[in-house]
Amino acid sequence: MIKDLWLVGIGTGSPGHVTLDGMQALRDAAVILLPRKGEAKENLLALRQVILEAAGTRAEIRSFDYPERDPALPYAARVAAWHDEIARRWSAALHAAPDGPVALLVWGDPALYDSTLRIAGRLTPRPALRVIPGITAIQALTAAHAIPLNEVNGAVKITTGRRLRDHGWPEGEDTLVVMLDGACSFAGLDPEGVHIWWGAYLGSPAQRLLAGPLAEVADEIIAARAEARARHGWIMDTYLLRRGSTG
Amino acid sequence: MIKDLWLVGIGTGSPGHVTLDGMQALRDAAVILLPRKGEAKENLLALRQVILEAAGTRAEIRSFDYPERDPALPYAARVAAWHDEIARRWSAALHAAPDGPVALLVWGDPALYDSTLRIAGRLTPRPALRVIPGITAIQALTAAHAIPLNEVNGAVKITTGRRLRDHGWPEGEDTLVVMLDGACSFAGLDPEGVHIWWGAYLGSPAQRLLAGPLAEVADEIIAARAEARARHGWIMDTYLLRRGSTG
Repeated sequence: MIKDLWLVGIGTGSPGHVTLDGMQALRDAAVILLPRKGEAKENLLALRQVILEAAGTRAEIRSFDYPERDPALPYAARVAAWHDEIARRWSAALHAAPDGPVALLVWGDPALYDSTLRIAGRLTPRPALRVIPGITAIQALTAAHAIPLNEVNGAVKITTGRRLRDHGWPEGEDTLVVMLDGACSFAGLDPEGVHIWWGAYLGSPAQRLLAGPLAEVADEIIAARAEARARHGWIMDTYLLRRGSTG
Repeated sequence: MIKDLWLVGIGTGSPGHVTLDGMQALRDAAVILLPRKGEAKENLLALRQVILEAAGTRAEIRSFDYPERDPALPYAARVAAWHDEIARRWSAALHAAPDGPVALLVWGDPALYDSTLRIAGRLTPRPALRVIPGITAIQALTAAHAIPLNEVNGAVKITTGRRLRDHGWPEGEDTLVVMLDGACSFAGLDPEGVHIWWGAYLGSPAQRLLAGPLAEVADEIIAARAEARARHGWIMDTYLLRRGSTG
């Protein structure tokens, strides 16, 4: 039913993150499929509206409700069932066949810790996919702190809060970027010689940044995160850890 | 002499990669500092001109010549001396003090395997830095292949061709992104169970993509890379390797 599906990365909180290609795709789409999340993230929906207005799109807007994840299932099965259900809801919303490409706005970049590509892979028949990259939280973080991601000829490991809690600091790594960490997993590390650059609501007017030796700023970040989360009702944050760095 | 220095990430080969923030910064800058590279990469300079025209900037354009790297020095010292010399050339080009912010166009994103932030750190007095993120080759690669960078809750390691040659496949990793690889270092790996997604001139009209089981496509990529490099006089490419993936 969907012939052409476009995944448009919109960056992390500022309409200024959207690329010229992204804006053009929103103008060229026939239908834009938007989630109606029953959530506290009202300002994320508002940002999508601001971007659509800035693009000046004439696309038809269709909405679908996000399903709940089933907490009774183990992690992988829970995620798979949730993706299946979202794909069904996309198909239902697009039952009346769109007369042209369908676009989805994807937070950050569609390639990085995002489900949209995996959900799209469940559609039958498979639509032709077009992915338009967007600024990730990692880039918004390094830009806000004006730091390089890597050291000269250095490697970088991107990982999750869950992995950091389960496995500790990965052997042999100097630079870690930690995403999807709802539990301040940096607090469980030996802070000796580790520098942290942390950011929340990156790119948005609410952006909050903290950085310093982990031993000195960990408690401050934990407190700032809890305070900001209570005030906004939600939080998105990420951080970079570097070993053997003086900042 | 430089009060405000803006590093504007311009993506990897398409004016459509530039963000709205990037375009606005090019319009708001008083001076744009452009390298005059004595190189075959004429089309890179042409792309910068296309972007500046698309932005409609009225900034004064000042140029500087890129120095040569000293091949007699060991790697780290060679890079450091080269950065020192570029910082001196920026300062010389900006000797007549600009009446406002100075912008530099940075290929990809200023945080990822780029020297501009390190060179800026050598300026005295230190200017106020503003970094505007841009689409990286990694994002252009995953977008072109319409693949996710990470697996669900998976980690990703970003590394260099040099490190892959020196250390082999890093222990415990499933997903590797390899950058700055002028030597097809994937050819030295045990290809069993490894899938590769390769791309060159990503985002540009010359974009070239190949993907498949490493055992089957390694030779094809090596040949395609050599042919393209000979034809264009230069090449920029990157690739993603995934173990235990069927694609």
